[in-house]
Amino acid sequence: MELKDYAGALLETLRQRTPLVQCIVNTVVQQFAANVLLAAGASPAMIDHEADAADFAEIADGLLINFGTPTSHQYLSADGAIDTFAQSGKPWVLDPVGFGISAHRTSRIMRALNSGPAIVRGNASEIIGLAQQSGSARGTDSTHSVDDALAAAASLAQAGIVAAVSGESDAIVFADDSATHTVTITGGSPYMPSVIGTGCSLGALTAAYAATAAHTRQTQDLSPRVRTGMAAAAAHLHFTSAAQAAHTQASGPGTFAAHFLDGLHAVGPDDLARIETAWTTGGTA
Amino acid sequence: MELKDYAGALLETLRQRTPLVQCIVNTVVQQFAANVLLAAGASPAMIDHEADAADFAEIADGLLINFGTPTSHQYLSADGAIDTFAQSGKPWVLDPVGFGISAHRTSRIMRALNSGPAIVRGNASEIIGLAQQSGSARGTDSTHSVDDALAAAASLAQAGIVAAVSGESDAIVFADDSATHTVTITGGSPYMPSVIGTGCSLGALTAAYAATAAHTRQTQDLSPRVRTGMAAAAAHLHFTSAAQAAHTQASGPGTFAAHFLDGLHAVGPDDLARIETAWTTGGTA
Amino acid sequence: MELKDYAGALLETLRQRTPLVQCIVNTVVQQFAANVLLAAGASPAMIDHEADAADFAEIADGLLINFGTPTSHQYLSADGAIDTFAQSGKPWVLDPVGFGISAHRTSRIMRALNSGPAIVRGNASEIIGLAQQSGSARGTDSTHSVDDALAAAASLAQAGIVAAVSGESDAIVFADDSATHTVTITGGSPYMPSVIGTGCSLGALTAAYAATAAHTRQTQDLSPRVRTGMAAAAAHLHFTSAAQAAHTQASGPGTFAAHFLDGLHAVGPDDLARIETAWTTGGTA
Repeated sequence: MELKDYAGALLETLRQRTPLVQCIVNTVVQQFAANVLLAAGASPAMIDHEADAADFAEIADGLLINFGTPTSHQYLSADGAIDTFAQSGKPWVLDPVGFGISAHRTSRIMRALNSGPAIVRGNASEIIGLAQQSGSARGTDSTHSVDDALAAAASLAQAGIVAAVSGESDAIVFADDSATHTVTITGGSPYMPSVIGTGCSLGALTAAYAATAAHTRQTQDLSPRVRTGMAAAAAHLHFTSAAQAAHTQASGPGTFAAHFLDGLHAVGPDDLARIETAWTTGGTA
Repeated sequence: MELKDYAGALLETLRQRTPLVQCIVNTVVQQFAANVLLAAGASPAMIDHEADAADFAEIADGLLINFGTPTSHQYLSADGAIDTFAQSGKPWVLDPVGFGISAHRTSRIMRALNSGPAIVRGNASEIIGLAQQSGSARGTDSTHSVDDALAAAASLAQAGIVAAVSGESDAIVFADDSATHTVTITGGSPYMPSVIGTGCSLGALTAAYAATAAHTRQTQDLSPRVRTGMAAAAAHLHFTSAAQAAHTQASGPGTFAAHFLDGLHAVGPDDLARIETAWTTGGTA
Repeated sequence: MELKDYAGALLETLRQRTPLVQCIVNTVVQQFAANVLLAAGASPAMIDHEADAADFAEIADGLLINFGTPTSHQYLSADGAIDTFAQSGKPWVLDPVGFGISAHRTSRIMRALNSGPAIVRGNASEIIGLAQQSGSARGTDSTHSVDDALAAAASLAQAGIVAAVSGESDAIVFADDSATHTVTITGGSPYMPSVIGTGCSLGALTAAYAATAAHTRQTQDLSPRVRTGMAAAAAHLHFTSAAQAAHTQASGPGTFAAHFLDGLHAVGPDDLARIETAWTTGGTA
């Protein structure tokens, strides 16, 4: 099977199972991320109070951690929800948004990184900072290209984490015992950086796909890291396909956002297969 | 007078009075709920800090309590705002979203229920859980049909609370001294469950109508429970009519959400009268 | 040079520099305000936790303070971010939303006012209340006209603060050593009051322009107060032009909001020059 076959099978399973995705995510993008999950076929739950976030994580299928505009409730909730996911072995996604903007933020993100996410999804500057455990970010904008971040992504991959780097082209990097794989996905829309929350909600959709992969016949026999890599790639294909469809309907970033949600809802397996991808495999470092 | 006459009169009064509706509501849907209230003709205020929520409740006309993603500020604010409404006798709405997801959440919702809401609005699973004081929810999705919830709604009605159950058809259940009435409203759009906050913002609009009913000539002489039932039904008719109009314009959930707000703004009394309804009356249990 | 030449130059510089604007702003409008900044050409960052808001303010170019639905995190963050801006001399914007709704809210807004904002932007009732250090607001709606607020705005201007009053026409009032200037901007769309966050996000855009003025060749030699007045006026022209363009595309407040973001993205210097303005100059009081 090829990537596109896996992606199509994952999309169909996601729509059948409607995975419940707990998002501990910045308040700026909660509405958009919830709408992205609903439109794509998943079920959102932004449960982020320490009184019940860990309990809720027991029934959640997926989990996204994103400290964009954290409250103390969110820092405490993340600790609890991550613990629940770690105990059950369910895969979860870390979005290192804001890595490097302050020592405090960076230390909280590193604490999450060291708790074992299956996937890290961020822009190039965030992935580089995370891999080097240092950073100097400028808000949520990347000052590096995706190519700049491939070495950093490979080092995360070799540590057992699927690294997804977002940019004009996206790169999904993951390793198995013998090799490091890089899937590149090209397309999307130039309006995407002008809509808040596209990156954050891609993290949410990636968590939905990661929750689906162990329950999809075509991917369940793959090794966990390759299976998770396929899930991350499928989420990015779904996003890219919706963005391309929306771009043809939009007259600016506002109408783009509405058509993008329409696109996420309408995309089918054949649409994913039409997106331009490349897969390269290298030795482990 | 019939339901549709009451509903039309309430809509006209709402637009004249622009009731100020305080919403203590989850951050995921604050923007959408505020836009729903503005588009429909009411005035939103999401005042939810314990330092002034109770004070603000003195000037608010309506109140919605919804603990979807509560902060500690919201739990404390709700206590204060509910006290203010209880002292003045103004009607307020409880949305039991999240009932059953954790012992903590359930206990906070029961505490609000026991403080005397005029209306409870939720999906079938939430209404059943609330009436039985037990629940096992899966996020915000209902696992029951509206018909499943009619007995639970009737038991709330007989305890003096108007129960509004949302689903493919909506049911508004309320009791007077001699009978229990069930108003069923059919219509809407299959896109509604794919837009976050439609249920929550229906609760907000219900609070706006409840605040209007005592000031509407045609409803002010009805008994409080029947008057409140008419207000809840009018809010659901307004919502359903806007959804039907939007459905014909939409190409997916993103464009639906924009056209739905347009529809709420454009709907008039004649539109409410065109929605399919049924009214059945039974004895009290 | 005339106002419109300054405004056009500021717009071009804003798009080149993409100023990073820290917004401590109510959660209801965080998404919309972020989308407004992105569409217009700036970069938003809603950093509002006391652990790093003051640190982040060191790299932010602009700052908006708006206590619409404050958390305790936001009150504490504002103190820190304002201190950082005060030390560096960078201009920041205060939006006195909610002034007068409670003694607590009013005292926090007065504390911010006394910390030296370059610009205050609000509706007529808020500006009057602020200038008189008293108020009796009804949520976020103004119960006064812009003309009613001109004397209050002039008193703020003579105290060294640029006052921007929003309404059907907007007035920007600022003083230099010899005179008080009032720029009136007419236009926009009647849908604007039916979309939540238009006022708040105008504050955010004003902060972006204020951050741009010292770096724009055409305005950098103006006195700081006149330069800041030009920046505030340019932000309001940009907003008004986008609203007018959106109005022709919209069929209600929902589609208006989408087209408004498109308009902010598309507006150029020539569009700003087409908006109706008046500039009157009087003596200082």
